[in-house]
Amino acid sequence: MKYSIIAIGDELLLGQVTDTNSGSIARMLDPYGWKLDNVQVVADSADAIRQAIDRAFAATDVVLTTGGLGPTKDDITKGVLTAYFGGELREDAAVLDNVISVMTRNGRELNALTRAQAMVPTSCDVIQNEVGTAPIMWFEHDGKVLVSMPGVPHETLTMMQRKVMPRLLSRFPSDVALDHRVALVADLSESRVAMVLAEWEEALPQHLHIAYLPKARLIRLRLDGKAADAAALSADLDREYDKMIALLGKHVVAKEDVPLPEVLVKAARAKGLTIATAESCTGGNIAHEITTVPGCSDVMKGGIVSYSNDMKMNLLGVRSETLERYGAVSEQTVAEMLRGAHKACDADLVMATSGIAGPGGGTDGKPVGTVVVGASLRGSEPAIATWHFGGSRTRIIDQSTTTAIITALHLLQD
Amino acid sequence: MKYSIIAIGDELLLGQVTDTNSGSIARMLDPYGWKLDNVQVVADSADAIRQAIDRAFAATDVVLTTGGLGPTKDDITKGVLTAYFGGELREDAAVLDNVISVMTRNGRELNALTRAQAMVPTSCDVIQNEVGTAPIMWFEHDGKVLVSMPGVPHETLTMMQRKVMPRLLSRFPSDVALDHRVALVADLSESRVAMVLAEWEEALPQHLHIAYLPKARLIRLRLDGKAADAAALSADLDREYDKMIALLGKHVVAKEDVPLPEVLVKAARAKGLTIATAESCTGGNIAHEITTVPGCSDVMKGGIVSYSNDMKMNLLGVRSETLERYGAVSEQTVAEMLRGAHKACDADLVMATSGIAGPGGGTDGKPVGTVVVGASLRGSEPAIATWHFGGSRTRIIDQSTTTAIITALHLLQD
Repeated sequence: MKYSIIAIGDELLLGQVTDTNSGSIARMLDPYGWKLDNVQVVADSADAIRQAIDRAFAATDVVLTTGGLGPTKDDITKGVLTAYFGGELREDAAVLDNVISVMTRNGRELNALTRAQAMVPTSCDVIQNEVGTAPIMWFEHDGKVLVSMPGVPHETLTMMQRKVMPRLLSRFPSDVALDHRVALVADLSESRVAMVLAEWEEALPQHLHIAYLPKARLIRLRLDGKAADAAALSADLDREYDKMIALLGKHVVAKEDVPLPEVLVKAARAKGLTIATAESCTGGNIAHEITTVPGCSDVMKGGIVSYSNDMKMNLLGVRSETLERYGAVSEQTVAEMLRGAHKACDADLVMATSGIAGPGGGTDGKPVGTVVVGASLRGSEPAIATWHFGGSRTRIIDQSTTTAIITALHLLQD
Repeated sequence: MKYSIIAIGDELLLGQVTDTNSGSIARMLDPYGWKLDNVQVVADSADAIRQAIDRAFAATDVVLTTGGLGPTKDDITKGVLTAYFGGELREDAAVLDNVISVMTRNGRELNALTRAQAMVPTSCDVIQNEVGTAPIMWFEHDGKVLVSMPGVPHETLTMMQRKVMPRLLSRFPSDVALDHRVALVADLSESRVAMVLAEWEEALPQHLHIAYLPKARLIRLRLDGKAADAAALSADLDREYDKMIALLGKHVVAKEDVPLPEVLVKAARAKGLTIATAESCTGGNIAHEITTVPGCSDVMKGGIVSYSNDMKMNLLGVRSETLERYGAVSEQTVAEMLRGAHKACDADLVMATSGIAGPGGGTDGKPVGTVVVGASLRGSEPAIATWHFGGSRTRIIDQSTTTAIITALHLLQD
């Protein structure tokens, strides 16, 4: 099934808000064989919205819209949809009840602006928004469906999961089996992976397809398949996936589709190890990434953000002679940070970073992007290396974070 | 000047990558009065790209495309552009030199896939990509311009800043003055701010416009203006901005357009104060946010991610009786974390969090989303409160982080 998305809102075109909903919806519907054909991002303007709907319906029978429904907007979207699908705007008692109950739960009172949320076109089926005040509207016309949803990501995605997706899947049932396998690959560039896999990829059966998804020093490989028979498809995927994994060898850090920090948490848990961090240039981002993993508390002890040299000395026991002789950004300092993190946090597996994230602070010998990354498993030799990353401050922090987690993972692989 | 963006790539429609380029470009061009009219996200498909170009040129005279140029793609975009604008694909010696020099700098070798990057349509002006291998192509036809750029954000944005934007601005010069003022507002909902400002907004002169940008417990208000005379516009903006600020009072936490963590870093620097964190449920995210601010090291000492109770006791001196009697998620524990952070990190202004980010771990008394947030300025009473946030784990972490920074900022306001 193909569908289109229209993301509505001046704030999106001003670059004040990024449309993450379209990607989230695509990932949600993808396992069911629903293919996002196109996304249009348009202004809060009646003409723009109307034209976008025309174009979307020309391409696909299902159109999802997000946004354009906030209480401070001029309700343009609802007006346009009413004109497009017929009927009129009318206050809906059930929606008003829902708005009042959502607001009461959040400790807020109904006002004139939020009350207007209860006005809905008579031509739609309302799906109550269980986590916000803007109602979801389901329109049908000539076998085509348009669903208008709010733009606040947690509302869109919660209601998509709870109500909209189930209804879409039952309205347009499928009879083709779809399946996929994912691997996370570290330490290789995209073109290097492509060359390693070239011959295998050339010989892939027609109904299988490989996609490359590079991101800050990590590549996600996704092998997709589509066939009438689910069991045969699964066997085909397993066979080709095994060949692919064999070609990539130790560069495969995970054989499932989970975020990298979760790979580390699971690997540590499997070995009964605890984790901690000692971060300078990453400033807490490694600990933050690890603690985004639900249920990580059995493994994650915490960490020390030793941004200043004081903290490196007082909390991690880095020696002042080491800092003076080699500098904070040195393999010697990181080695002492690792030792200190084992001790201060009483953890088995620790990661440490020290570097120059920029834009200031670079020198000829240690330019911006120079980052020392280390990981250490209690009782073994630590792995410490100096890297030279490119890009902005944020990008250098991201690459350092990913590299620290990959370094730690390699210690568990050995 | 109006323009359109086409973001090309299957990965965008699969939700594997989010298009952040469009927003970044919009923010970059916005100060020059360039208005992003629409964004289309389309697949690596010749038909889809061709149709998107037709639609974009129907709406605006300038079209920017991002993506579709990676070494593992089937070079569809370059083929489509060659067919669309005429000419043929030919290897360009200067581009090949650039590809080789970029790869050498990154310690990589030319291979067949990267060599293909040097093939460019004869109908375009090439802008050398100084930070990547995919060349930037500038096409002109009947007074209309299309610029094709790579999709990797740091390449797109670096080259946009260095070459593409200056050339666009000189190709289409403007004679209207534009200006704006920004304020960050905390502790009020979007609809509450709208009601406070309703009367003032109603009376705003025609050439001024206010926009609301809410994000995790913070609202960015942007007052924009457009006029022939720059000095008169600036005076009008100052007058209306002052009125707006007066209406919102102490809820205004910043009178400039900077990220919230930077507001805190600047405020602390102005008072000669150092900052540190003691984080449980936010897991290092507050320290991470603060250390995204370039040059924060004169103010930021670091922090302790005391995810486990061990770390709370050993590094922050939280008493075991307090944890047993009140639990880790309690105002009593957070008070001791704050005291411990002052001492362990030797910092003047500290923030602490302890809560249940979910999805597991909630109880009847302390459901998921319960977060205690505190801030303390050395020598004064700490500010500690219990909050109930909604949404996913990530959203609860984000809201807790913003709340901690706002709480600390209020201590500096008093």
